[in-house]
Amino acid sequence: MVGMEPGWYVGADVGGTKIAVMVVDEAGQVRSRLSAPTDVSHPEATLAGIATALRQAVAVAGVEWSAIAAVGVGIPGQVNPQTGEVRLAVNLNLREIALGPRLEALLKVPCFLENDVRAAALGLLHHHYRGQTVSNLAYLSVGTGISAGVILQGNLYRGATGMAGEVGHIVVERDGALCACGLRGCLETVATGPSIARRGQEALATGRSTLLRHDARLTAEILYEAARAGDPIARRVADEVGSYLAQALHQLIMAYDVERLVVGGGVAQAGDPFWQPIRRALERQRQASPLAHTMLAPEKFHLLPPDSLVGQWGAITLARLGRLRGQSNGHAKEVHRYQAAC
Amino acid sequence: MVGMEPGWYVGADVGGTKIAVMVVDEAGQVRSRLSAPTDVSHPEATLAGIATALRQAVAVAGVEWSAIAAVGVGIPGQVNPQTGEVRLAVNLNLREIALGPRLEALLKVPCFLENDVRAAALGLLHHHYRGQTVSNLAYLSVGTGISAGVILQGNLYRGATGMAGEVGHIVVERDGALCACGLRGCLETVATGPSIARRGQEALATGRSTLLRHDARLTAEILYEAARAGDPIARRVADEVGSYLAQALHQLIMAYDVERLVVGGGVAQAGDPFWQPIRRALERQRQASPLAHTMLAPEKFHLLPPDSLVGQWGAITLARLGRLRGQSNGHAKEVHRYQAAC
Repeated sequence: MVGMEPGWYVGADVGGTKIAVMVVDEAGQVRSRLSAPTDVSHPEATLAGIATALRQAVAVAGVEWSAIAAVGVGIPGQVNPQTGEVRLAVNLNLREIALGPRLEALLKVPCFLENDVRAAALGLLHHHYRGQTVSNLAYLSVGTGISAGVILQGNLYRGATGMAGEVGHIVVERDGALCACGLRGCLETVATGPSIARRGQEALATGRSTLLRHDARLTAEILYEAARAGDPIARRVADEVGSYLAQALHQLIMAYDVERLVVGGGVAQAGDPFWQPIRRALERQRQASPLAHTMLAPEKFHLLPPDSLVGQWGAITLARLGRLRGQSNGHAKEVHRYQAAC
Repeated sequence: MVGMEPGWYVGADVGGTKIAVMVVDEAGQVRSRLSAPTDVSHPEATLAGIATALRQAVAVAGVEWSAIAAVGVGIPGQVNPQTGEVRLAVNLNLREIALGPRLEALLKVPCFLENDVRAAALGLLHHHYRGQTVSNLAYLSVGTGISAGVILQGNLYRGATGMAGEVGHIVVERDGALCACGLRGCLETVATGPSIARRGQEALATGRSTLLRHDARLTAEILYEAARAGDPIARRVADEVGSYLAQALHQLIMAYDVERLVVGGGVAQAGDPFWQPIRRALERQRQASPLAHTMLAPEKFHLLPPDSLVGQWGAITLARLGRLRGQSNGHAKEVHRYQAAC
């Protein structure tokens, strides 16, 4: 390998509970995958844990670290991809850290960071839809929060201040419930995991359920399991949530006019009981309106399968694109741009 | 002038009642302006009327037609800028016409067409904000319909099927009034000229007005005049409409994260009585939410002044950009691309 340009990539999708890492070779073939618990006890422990998981995945792939051309990392928080700084990664207990420079200092290889939902959108474009004529897509992640990663004309669209696609705080219910952001009726007040659970509790107080108990700790996951088993209360809540999410998908389509709108995230992993109410609500809109009939064509909408590796592919894409752009601009400094800051 | 490359541009903003034309010289200075009634009696009459107005404006400027490098035309309907075809220009009584090729055949000069709201967005970017560091903006036109022209990263964004920014049909009121599109609670059901007038009529049926009479024909213009004069019913309606439009502006900001959001169109010409309720509603959102406080910063939002020439400047920009791109690609055929189709 002496004198050869390294050509492997390693990508990490960092979540609040686990770090999922993937290693691919020059040909784009997956050579190892690894999942490790995220240590959120302290920012330094989180940083060290990410670096360790990356190194372990490369070791599992059976190559030296020197084979790695670049690292990509998706982070659930505000990421400045130019500086590698991360802010408000609440699930990781990170308020503000120069994660990119710190990782580069540890790993001695260019590291490219991005918000995890945006990274996943890149993964969809460059891996899942590779070879297809898709150049506009949005990835809506529904979990403890809601946001969208948006690809327009083949490129990630971040907006003027990096806030494009923060659709968790569009208002879907005028004068609705108070959101943590301070507004009323935001999408996050009706369709995140915690708000679905709260909605379930409220529904239980007004009706009879065969499967759910009012005193038990209710989660969105439990609610969707009950809906799958036919519980009428759970189904009613799932229908309401689906209707709000369909409204949000409609808004995304009218704003961005994308070819594909993919829904994923922790809550979406419930599968059919989560997805079918959305499909039905979209179908009602299609039946009501010729415009909606075209704009909400079923083939545009996809649920991410629960075993999707889109987060890891997104991280790999970050690494690849980062290196490509660094090289194609001929700025060697840009490739190792975070190291200067250390 | 023999042998000289022509360097003047002429642009027309075609509306349902008038055609507004502007001629600019090589230096970008306005050399003539002209406004003529639109003949919507028949598509052929409309076409001939546009051509005549363009020729007259050039004559008024005191130059030969041969000085004109290109023509730009903004049309209130669906425009395919590649083919010059226009569809569903309802206010012009045009269902489907190859307006670009027809105009080029008449005028013997490259003609560049675009939807009028999108053309206005281009005019804002290239004329009104020229020299400023604005590269993301949206222009929301509120008139007999509502739509937005969107500039992202310095370019007009049309979406995968040319429908990006058709925000008249985002839902702002779940289970609201039936929209002409078939859905319920679309923005167009609460904030177009006709729906503001209808809202005014309904409000008159429930309260006492000093200035508005229930039997008189009520328009949005009359309603805003009454609001300006202090009529409580008119003010209440203006506040409601402003609140819905603020909600729509919030959604546009969260989707696109633009630096400027400019509101114009026939209804917006009412000025303060139209605009202040929107400003107040945005301010309420800012006070309620730290996120909204940043995203809805007052300096992002502008009302287009009633005497704005943004439509004409947009048409001029179409002509300039069209010629620039035709030339820079070195495809002489592309410059006269519509003529081959005739």
